[in-house]
Amino acid sequence: MYIETIHSPQALKALSEKELPAVCQELRSALLKKLSEHGGHIGPNLGFVEATVALHYVFDSPSDKIVFDVSHQSYVHKMLTGRMQAFTDPAHYDDVSGYTNPAESSHDMFNVGHTSTSVSLACGLAKGRDLLDQKYNVVAVIGDGSLSGGEAFEGLNNVAEQGTNMIVVVNDNEMSIPENRGGMYRNFKQLRDTQGTAECNFFKSMGLDYVYEDKGNDVEALVEVFRKVKDSDHPIVVHIHTQKGNGYGPAMRNREQFHWGFPFDLASGQCKVQFDGERYEDLTGAYLMEQIRRRPEVVAVTAAMPMTFGFTPAMRVEAGRQFVDVGIAEEHATAFLSGIAKAGGRPVFALNSTFVQRTYDQLTQDLSLNANPAVILIFYNGVYSLNDVTHTGFQDIPMISNIPGITYLSPYTKEEYFAMLDWALLQNKGPVVIRVPEKVVSSGEADTTDYNQTNKYEVVQRGREVAILGLGIFQSQAQQTVNLLQQQGVRATLINPKFVSGVDAALLESLKTDHRLVVTLEDGLVEGGFGAKIAQFYANSSVKVLNRGLPKAFYDRFKTSDLLNEMRLTPELLWADIMSSLQE
Amino acid sequence: MYIETIHSPQALKALSEKELPAVCQELRSALLKKLSEHGGHIGPNLGFVEATVALHYVFDSPSDKIVFDVSHQSYVHKMLTGRMQAFTDPAHYDDVSGYTNPAESSHDMFNVGHTSTSVSLACGLAKGRDLLDQKYNVVAVIGDGSLSGGEAFEGLNNVAEQGTNMIVVVNDNEMSIPENRGGMYRNFKQLRDTQGTAECNFFKSMGLDYVYEDKGNDVEALVEVFRKVKDSDHPIVVHIHTQKGNGYGPAMRNREQFHWGFPFDLASGQCKVQFDGERYEDLTGAYLMEQIRRRPEVVAVTAAMPMTFGFTPAMRVEAGRQFVDVGIAEEHATAFLSGIAKAGGRPVFALNSTFVQRTYDQLTQDLSLNANPAVILIFYNGVYSLNDVTHTGFQDIPMISNIPGITYLSPYTKEEYFAMLDWALLQNKGPVVIRVPEKVVSSGEADTTDYNQTNKYEVVQRGREVAILGLGIFQSQAQQTVNLLQQQGVRATLINPKFVSGVDAALLESLKTDHRLVVTLEDGLVEGGFGAKIAQFYANSSVKVLNRGLPKAFYDRFKTSDLLNEMRLTPELLWADIMSSLQE
Repeated sequence: MYIETIHSPQALKALSEKELPAVCQELRSALLKKLSEHGGHIGPNLGFVEATVALHYVFDSPSDKIVFDVSHQSYVHKMLTGRMQAFTDPAHYDDVSGYTNPAESSHDMFNVGHTSTSVSLACGLAKGRDLLDQKYNVVAVIGDGSLSGGEAFEGLNNVAEQGTNMIVVVNDNEMSIPENRGGMYRNFKQLRDTQGTAECNFFKSMGLDYVYEDKGNDVEALVEVFRKVKDSDHPIVVHIHTQKGNGYGPAMRNREQFHWGFPFDLASGQCKVQFDGERYEDLTGAYLMEQIRRRPEVVAVTAAMPMTFGFTPAMRVEAGRQFVDVGIAEEHATAFLSGIAKAGGRPVFALNSTFVQRTYDQLTQDLSLNANPAVILIFYNGVYSLNDVTHTGFQDIPMISNIPGITYLSPYTKEEYFAMLDWALLQNKGPVVIRVPEKVVSSGEADTTDYNQTNKYEVVQRGREVAILGLGIFQSQAQQTVNLLQQQGVRATLINPKFVSGVDAALLESLKTDHRLVVTLEDGLVEGGFGAKIAQFYANSSVKVLNRGLPKAFYDRFKTSDLLNEMRLTPELLWADIMSSLQE
Repeated sequence: MYIETIHSPQALKALSEKELPAVCQELRSALLKKLSEHGGHIGPNLGFVEATVALHYVFDSPSDKIVFDVSHQSYVHKMLTGRMQAFTDPAHYDDVSGYTNPAESSHDMFNVGHTSTSVSLACGLAKGRDLLDQKYNVVAVIGDGSLSGGEAFEGLNNVAEQGTNMIVVVNDNEMSIPENRGGMYRNFKQLRDTQGTAECNFFKSMGLDYVYEDKGNDVEALVEVFRKVKDSDHPIVVHIHTQKGNGYGPAMRNREQFHWGFPFDLASGQCKVQFDGERYEDLTGAYLMEQIRRRPEVVAVTAAMPMTFGFTPAMRVEAGRQFVDVGIAEEHATAFLSGIAKAGGRPVFALNSTFVQRTYDQLTQDLSLNANPAVILIFYNGVYSLNDVTHTGFQDIPMISNIPGITYLSPYTKEEYFAMLDWALLQNKGPVVIRVPEKVVSSGEADTTDYNQTNKYEVVQRGREVAILGLGIFQSQAQQTVNLLQQQGVRATLINPKFVSGVDAALLESLKTDHRLVVTLEDGLVEGGFGAKIAQFYANSSVKVLNRGLPKAFYDRFKTSDLLNEMRLTPELLWADIMSSLQE
């Protein structure tokens, strides 16, 4: 076994080129074993085994700097840079994150998890190098759908201008998460079909030098091409054609499904994790398909993540022109929504909380300022959802709720969620954003709320002394806390605010008469969030306010229950804090 | 005179093609007269007179939809669509905004003021049209530097994919605000040099059909080319080569200076407005040049607006590789900063408050999460600055101060500002953002604050009962209010917080002992802003808090003094409100 001995890139470099295919074979087997047991990004890593080996064989990391886009394809890089055990020993699987991480290794340049950033980050490294009159290679790895994001384009445009050493490895596996979308990809096909010789060349049109390597999973061919560009005195694109999921049949056949996956059976490729019960992904897709069938103006929009709202390949086909995948291009998506709505369409865009951050200006200027009635659904938010630091959904509340003109709704039950969607798809006030809960809770009763009454909170139970406002999924904690208080003889008021973006002034005012304490619970960063609005409302009164949520910080790979305990967001701890506050 | 009779595009269409040059001549003269008396976007409009006339002559607005990028070149469009008086009658100059505005006319599709959005917005209009099975042309006008912004690229990539009628008019005047930056522009030169016949073609590489027209200021040539593409059944780029500032010598010679300008003498082109006293633009540029001379690792970065921090053409030349204009590409700029700082450089990026909105995700993920010590200067913020709804600087506080890991500073005096800059350029904690005040105030005394003490506020005067925290430029209001209170025998505490992004818990805690009221003043949206943090701090105490700033809303062409009065942000009104609160 080679890989047991590779504790650093130096060990790899000591091997002969002829030995590299065997190394790749071992790496791929080890990787597959871990992925099948642990889950993770499958196709992107399997397709990039040879390229990673070739990069480390030719370049001298960490003197030479390699920047991985999204860094979801950096697993082999981690294996080769001192972190092999995290891939071969199940007890150590969780020693490493799923992305590059400077805290793990000096071979990792940045914490990265969003797409389309590597070229700009690498361009900065190269600039820093030049300013200090140093000499090393800077390599940006990008592809796998990431090139369609505007930041990547801005980066490419500036790399040519900068003019000094930089190598941009374009990993062209013909895919994004689903198929690639966009006119640019036709040019990539033309380039593949002509072995890179087509005169019309996107990269050359950006002022960049260019080489093409069709055998992107042939480690020896890659070593040769990387040797040619090493120490280049100018920027150069190395366009390599790879096979997503290479070497593993199920991943090569089902490329979208195997982009990222839970543990699976290695022989069959079958996912080992069974989901019980309802999921908002599926419920939302089914709901929207029904809308699409009835209303020609309804259109579902995704930025390369159709499964976020349950749009299976079959549903995409059925929806036809009423389903649009814009590729990884959230800025475009948001402006596109505004145009569609202006022209009389009814667009619904679903995306992860962490990715809505990419479109702050478009939400403000393109959409909200123009008051066009588009609908945006924010999935994967809060403490019960994704826990990689680059993918947490904790900022959407402070971000969106403070942009003028947006109605931001946070349902607790599925009945509320669909009532909000029904309303949002008919109203003409302006953009409506809905925070999709991580868990499906059903009240069993239709929600008859009139959502035209902006900022009207629901009073679930009217009590006195203390009121608890549990936003969205935290209505559960609020209810349980109210129950605990009840057992101590305190009949608290329970409120389901539903509106994140504004305060119910009449209701809050009325609480002043017989309440001493108002408690807010929100599933996100608490500074500048929902609770802040309540604290501001009561700031100049004698009503005390307790805001609970997450302190402003980055959170990495937390355990939900630990976080809830630490932030005193469990019913028991909330009960204790409320009792103590009431006794002051 | 033709233009007196043109009250709608129909009137223009009634003329013969031969009459159009004379119409253009009249429009240009009228435009120049207004611009010289009123100021505005000069070069962009002068260069686009013929194209606008040709567009309205050929297309049928508002059935056909024309979307202007930034819409700073839409003045002639306004003249031709019923708003001539606002350009010919000085009493009506301010009847129209400087940008397209649906509230003014059905010929204006969107409120637009930021770059690089027109293609995506138009793509949405075309999609809405297609969903409703309607037939009309959708035209996006873009150029003048706007193509380098990532959103434009995302849009172009999707237009090809959409595949139905859309006409993208690329206004290639060889300029951004200063010169164009980026490899793409070399291809544009190649296309101009070959009359659009070069095989390597950026637009074709994006999957788009393409025509070139070199005579972009020849109205008859443009009519011909627009007629050819009208009713196209697929997307097509019309690349027209125009002259920025066309027809006015000074604007053609000094294209950067005449991009936007104050009133000027028509004969000489001399600006009529004299600036007295110091300006932070010049002071910052001089300071940074000094740093650049002394420290090779310092680099000044702009996104096409070098004059924002006073980098004159001569200074850019002197700074050499220590000055980078990335073009209109704020996302790239922020990631680029992170890379530079990671590699040991010391980048300083200056931009308008309204444009920092374009880089929320990059601030969070590329920069702050990686804790790289870059410096960002936020110019043109608050009530004393730009007042077009698309350019107001009111959101930077709620936006930036709630992103984890960023130190956001707000100086009041120039001594504080430069002390903060000195510190920011040496520290290694992470990104530092400084909110540059709109007015230069000098204390005359060196600021010896140790800014390593994060969130340590300055107590200017320790009093009792009431404390006023005046953030940044509003320290002036705070001081004056404290003086008024003093006259009534109330010796208030005056605090200059300096740190926007966090609270001085020790100080705030200490105020609890002898203060009943804490007042915060901030020059921006108050929801989720600085005051919200103070309100949250005291929420569960008996100290009352009064947050003053602007309620969450969009503000268009306000008068500063009116706004300050309306929001009760004058010393007299603050004094009255504080006295009344203390008497409760």
